[in-house]
Amino acid sequence: ADAEAGKAKAAVCAACHGQNGISQIPMYPNLAGQKEQYLVASLKAYKNGQRQGGQSAVMQGQATGLSDADIANLAAFYASLPADGGK
Amino acid sequence: ADAEAGKAKAAVCAACHGQNGISQIPMYPNLAGQKEQYLVASLKAYKNGQRQGGQSAVMQGQATGLSDADIANLAAFYASLPADGGK
Repeated sequence: ADAEAGKAKAAVCAACHGQNGISQIPMYPNLAGQKEQYLVASLKAYKNGQRQGGQSAVMQGQATGLSDADIANLAAFYASLPADGGK
Repeated sequence: ADAEAGKAKAAVCAACHGQNGISQIPMYPNLAGQKEQYLVASLKAYKNGQRQGGQSAVMQGQATGLSDADIANLAAFYASLPADGGK
């Protein structure tokens, strides 16, 4: 996985999850420093419609256009960020 | 929500998500410092069977026995922990 490619792809994610992976919105999770494998599994579950409830409709729409490589790269990028937002 | 009550309830969660909310297992997410509202929505989605895929079967089993108050207290507890694990 290529975290740099993930960073480039993450521009759209930042609107809800923050530039540094710390969400400014209470309903949306922080992603910074999250486990890479978990992020991959979560994105695939959203893409496949396996996650319902909460804000899943938003994420299903976002994940639909992601390839497996995109997902791997995005997960590598967010996992690489400091969990405290770099403060 | 009562983070202290959540801490008492979280003993079983720690096996996978870590005593400090930082998972030692790549497939399981960190919970420390996560958004409280997101944790509530996620636990309810697991309990209701709305989250499939990944390790959701494990979490559905765990969440089944949780009341709305338990969920609120657990979410308050994990949201209160430092996202970097207190390092």
